[in-house]
Amino acid sequence: MSNQPSLNDYIEDISDLITSSLLEIFPSNWDVPSNLKESMTYSLLAGGKRLRPLLVITACEALGGRREVAIEAACSVEMVHTYSLIHDDLPAMDDDDYRRGKLTNHKVYGEAMAILAGDGLLTHAFFSLAQIARKHGIPSDRVLAIVEDLAEMAGPRGMVGGQVADMEGEQGLTSISQLEYIHTHKTSDLFIFSLIAGGRIAGADEAKITALRSFGHHIGLAFQIQDDILDLIGDEAKLGKKTQSDVKQDKVTYPYFIGLDESKLEVARLTHEAKRVIIEAGFPHPERLLEIADYLVNRDH
Amino acid sequence: MSNQPSLNDYIEDISDLITSSLLEIFPSNWDVPSNLKESMTYSLLAGGKRLRPLLVITACEALGGRREVAIEAACSVEMVHTYSLIHDDLPAMDDDDYRRGKLTNHKVYGEAMAILAGDGLLTHAFFSLAQIARKHGIPSDRVLAIVEDLAEMAGPRGMVGGQVADMEGEQGLTSISQLEYIHTHKTSDLFIFSLIAGGRIAGADEAKITALRSFGHHIGLAFQIQDDILDLIGDEAKLGKKTQSDVKQDKVTYPYFIGLDESKLEVARLTHEAKRVIIEAGFPHPERLLEIADYLVNRDH
Repeated sequence: MSNQPSLNDYIEDISDLITSSLLEIFPSNWDVPSNLKESMTYSLLAGGKRLRPLLVITACEALGGRREVAIEAACSVEMVHTYSLIHDDLPAMDDDDYRRGKLTNHKVYGEAMAILAGDGLLTHAFFSLAQIARKHGIPSDRVLAIVEDLAEMAGPRGMVGGQVADMEGEQGLTSISQLEYIHTHKTSDLFIFSLIAGGRIAGADEAKITALRSFGHHIGLAFQIQDDILDLIGDEAKLGKKTQSDVKQDKVTYPYFIGLDESKLEVARLTHEAKRVIIEAGFPHPERLLEIADYLVNRDH
Repeated sequence: MSNQPSLNDYIEDISDLITSSLLEIFPSNWDVPSNLKESMTYSLLAGGKRLRPLLVITACEALGGRREVAIEAACSVEMVHTYSLIHDDLPAMDDDDYRRGKLTNHKVYGEAMAILAGDGLLTHAFFSLAQIARKHGIPSDRVLAIVEDLAEMAGPRGMVGGQVADMEGEQGLTSISQLEYIHTHKTSDLFIFSLIAGGRIAGADEAKITALRSFGHHIGLAFQIQDDILDLIGDEAKLGKKTQSDVKQDKVTYPYFIGLDESKLEVARLTHEAKRVIIEAGFPHPERLLEIADYLVNRDH
């Protein structure tokens, strides 16, 4: 379709939409302690790529749903992702001073506020999500299913579990299946949530939800292996961070287990499989989903 | 009603029910990293008084609802309360080594795991809550309203906001209205959530919800002022912790602002007002709610 914006413009449009919507969700006159609000918005607006909101909206549009209806869910997943980064950067966890070239939350606001800002973002994600029934007339049982999905994918069996496994893994991971567990839960689970949330908002049937789940699992894993690869051979200037950090921290990675070439092949295989599932599921507008599968692994930062 | 159990037996029954239900929600074969599960259950089973679950169930029963239907919501609020204690005890926050005579979570499992256990409990509270539509046939819109309440009362405008204000307050609180803000959000908000969740589960109309909200606000504040009083003049053996900690930490309290006698009068006034609201709202079975209002402030630990 020649009148369609390019993928880059499409991604940038959605990223801008999410940033302005987050500013509306956290207005300057919001009645919460001002330092807490500052701390939360600091990280929300710290220049993330908005990949998860992109997945929510693209899945919704792939089914013919309207973008406007998916905004709050897209913002919710960005809040959850942001909280996880804030807590992850804490001294007791990864102890990072910088993220995307900016000081991490606790370096600006202190550790206590960073913990609470993370807690606040996680909790408010559910608030924002619960609104969509009233705001857009989406049936309550569908919204409740999305709430349950988020709690599952972001919780102990999902992202938090992946985080714990990752933390423990650094101290002696022995198999690639353990590494896959970590990648699946640390990364794929929120990708999956984003996709099925967009799908449910657009009224997807269970077959489509299953396809989106499989797509998310595959692109999430491919994305994470690509991260391992970029850490090994990426361009520091483009990445905005030092490479070889995994090797220096004795982190096990896909290249560590199966080598660089085999890891690249695995990324290609996973991406191909992700696209196959979407093509076969018969979405009315699958193009952007397919483009995004490639985009996620062709990036150089 | 002479065949009714005593208040103490009633409270103990509910406490036992919550403990056994939490064990069912976190079964030993649950598929999450075992250290994460241990860390979460350690704090959940560390001997809390289960006051918030008590409020959920009592509010439900005051409206003629069945206890069984309110269990998951009661467990959810206990998870949220427990997460807040775990994060509150962290070195970056209150830096406490003991709670209720037991080592705090991070002293046993380390700081990183304590942060993640808190995150996991907060997230899983929403999962457990979302279940009740399917499990007990409660209408989805009602369950969604409870989800929204929890996210509001536990989030930036609620408990997390109170926590931030408390943290900043220690560095120079100047008015009793600021202290009331802290108490309201740090304590009353989860009390209010518990009561209106129990009410919604039992199908309360908006007038009853408003009464439960007011009741929760008043007993929460009374409870917290009583805490201030016990810290000043309580029995260390019964409390299981050192008294005078507020004075030593330069914390401002109600007795600091208005004196001990006036604080006791305020507790009595708030409790009276809480009970008046419930009596006038015409609940079918208000007795336990009224008893609990007295129980919360007559305690010596």
